[in-house]
Amino acid sequence: MTNQSKSGTIYLMGIGPGDPELLTMQARKILTEVDYVVGYSLYVNQVSELTNNAILEHWAIGEELERAKRVIDLSADGNKVAMVSSGDIGIYGMSGPIFNILSDMQWNGKTPQVIVIPGISALQSASALLGSPLMQDFCTISLSDLLTDWPDIQNRITTASEGDFVVVFYNPKSKKRHWQLEAAFDSLKKCRPLDTPVGLVKNAFREDQEVVLVTLSTVMNVYHQIDMFTTVVVGNSTSYLFEGKFITPRGYEKKSGKSDEKK
Amino acid sequence: MTNQSKSGTIYLMGIGPGDPELLTMQARKILTEVDYVVGYSLYVNQVSELTNNAILEHWAIGEELERAKRVIDLSADGNKVAMVSSGDIGIYGMSGPIFNILSDMQWNGKTPQVIVIPGISALQSASALLGSPLMQDFCTISLSDLLTDWPDIQNRITTASEGDFVVVFYNPKSKKRHWQLEAAFDSLKKCRPLDTPVGLVKNAFREDQEVVLVTLSTVMNVYHQIDMFTTVVVGNSTSYLFEGKFITPRGYEKKSGKSDEKK
Repeated sequence: MTNQSKSGTIYLMGIGPGDPELLTMQARKILTEVDYVVGYSLYVNQVSELTNNAILEHWAIGEELERAKRVIDLSADGNKVAMVSSGDIGIYGMSGPIFNILSDMQWNGKTPQVIVIPGISALQSASALLGSPLMQDFCTISLSDLLTDWPDIQNRITTASEGDFVVVFYNPKSKKRHWQLEAAFDSLKKCRPLDTPVGLVKNAFREDQEVVLVTLSTVMNVYHQIDMFTTVVVGNSTSYLFEGKFITPRGYEKKSGKSDEKK
Repeated sequence: MTNQSKSGTIYLMGIGPGDPELLTMQARKILTEVDYVVGYSLYVNQVSELTNNAILEHWAIGEELERAKRVIDLSADGNKVAMVSSGDIGIYGMSGPIFNILSDMQWNGKTPQVIVIPGISALQSASALLGSPLMQDFCTISLSDLLTDWPDIQNRITTASEGDFVVVFYNPKSKKRHWQLEAAFDSLKKCRPLDTPVGLVKNAFREDQEVVLVTLSTVMNVYHQIDMFTTVVVGNSTSYLFEGKFITPRGYEKKSGKSDEKK
């Protein structure tokens, strides 16, 4: 940040699952006002028609730290920069690298200004297409062991299983990484019924969207269909399947007459 | 469903934290097309100006099952009905009661048609205002024991603590229910440092928004400020505070040169 007097603004923007209709009004407005849009090429393309004279910087997958540094440099030159990411940028997205680097640089918390714009996350897209899987306590676990050691991930799977959480798996499988998800299913089978629903949602709200409903006892039959673009949701001990929907009851039927307190 | 031939559509719609700018384009479009908008009075008021000749039904807090039955009855008469809920209707919201009742009625999965419209949830609003707390595996736990027995909630707090999850507490405290959150902090203190960040976000993206950053060692000093409108986020063992931001590192700095795989 060579010139703090000109310091601009970084918008950390989640663009949702891909359908422009699932962007917020706030995100669309800001896209028309920024000088730069920076991100993984696929995401920049998804919003390019919503911008207004912004310079588009397409990046390859990977290079997260370099991309974050570039955004900080552009803001230090006085620019308004939208860093775009699929889903919610605050959930396993680019918010982390930006704030990490800023704190390493002894950022003063003000220049550049950093504003986070939330977006519809993969867990919500999957939930909306499956039915009502997230009506009780849930957790998200990324099965990618590139940035987290496998024993730490395994510990989270075990504790989530013992806590009877509904579990949403991000990054479930890749070409090189195939056995972790099966290990996760094996852990979950120890604590919940074999007919527990498992929902697989691929390319949510895109043309090639796929929604598959199976159970813990049958999921290995479709294991080959799961890839990095799939979000995997496993129910808790009370979840059930009905007419193509994955339902986790909220609990009203058990405690009739009581109201929940969510405001 | 007395007349399936006329059966209409139920839109289960999350309206986000309250600011109309944080609605999706999809939600805004559907609000102009529906015959009825049904929900807790506060939420119906938040979207009333976005509708187009829709009949607005304001309900009191509570009466969730009655409200769900009303929506199903209206759809059975051939209406397009938006049931609105704050945040994401699929996260501790009204999606559950609707699907529960439909399955109890031996719904055929098609009439009424049920479409879930995701919205920005409280966990995302809080995350956006705090910094980047949700960069690693996280869980949500509702501390309301009206619909879930306390031992089950306590078990989830314990396992989340042992799994080193970032934890988002919904319904943390109410006028009558005040000790559960302190018990939760005590559990978390057993497994993570006392300087672990705790973020309190009240009335996110509303005029009276409040964001408070403390730690596990100091949170009891502001305990009296926490109420049912507060979302409470507790970091994992790697989270830290810096210049007014709550940062959970993604892990790039630990494993330099490696890319995460989120698509």
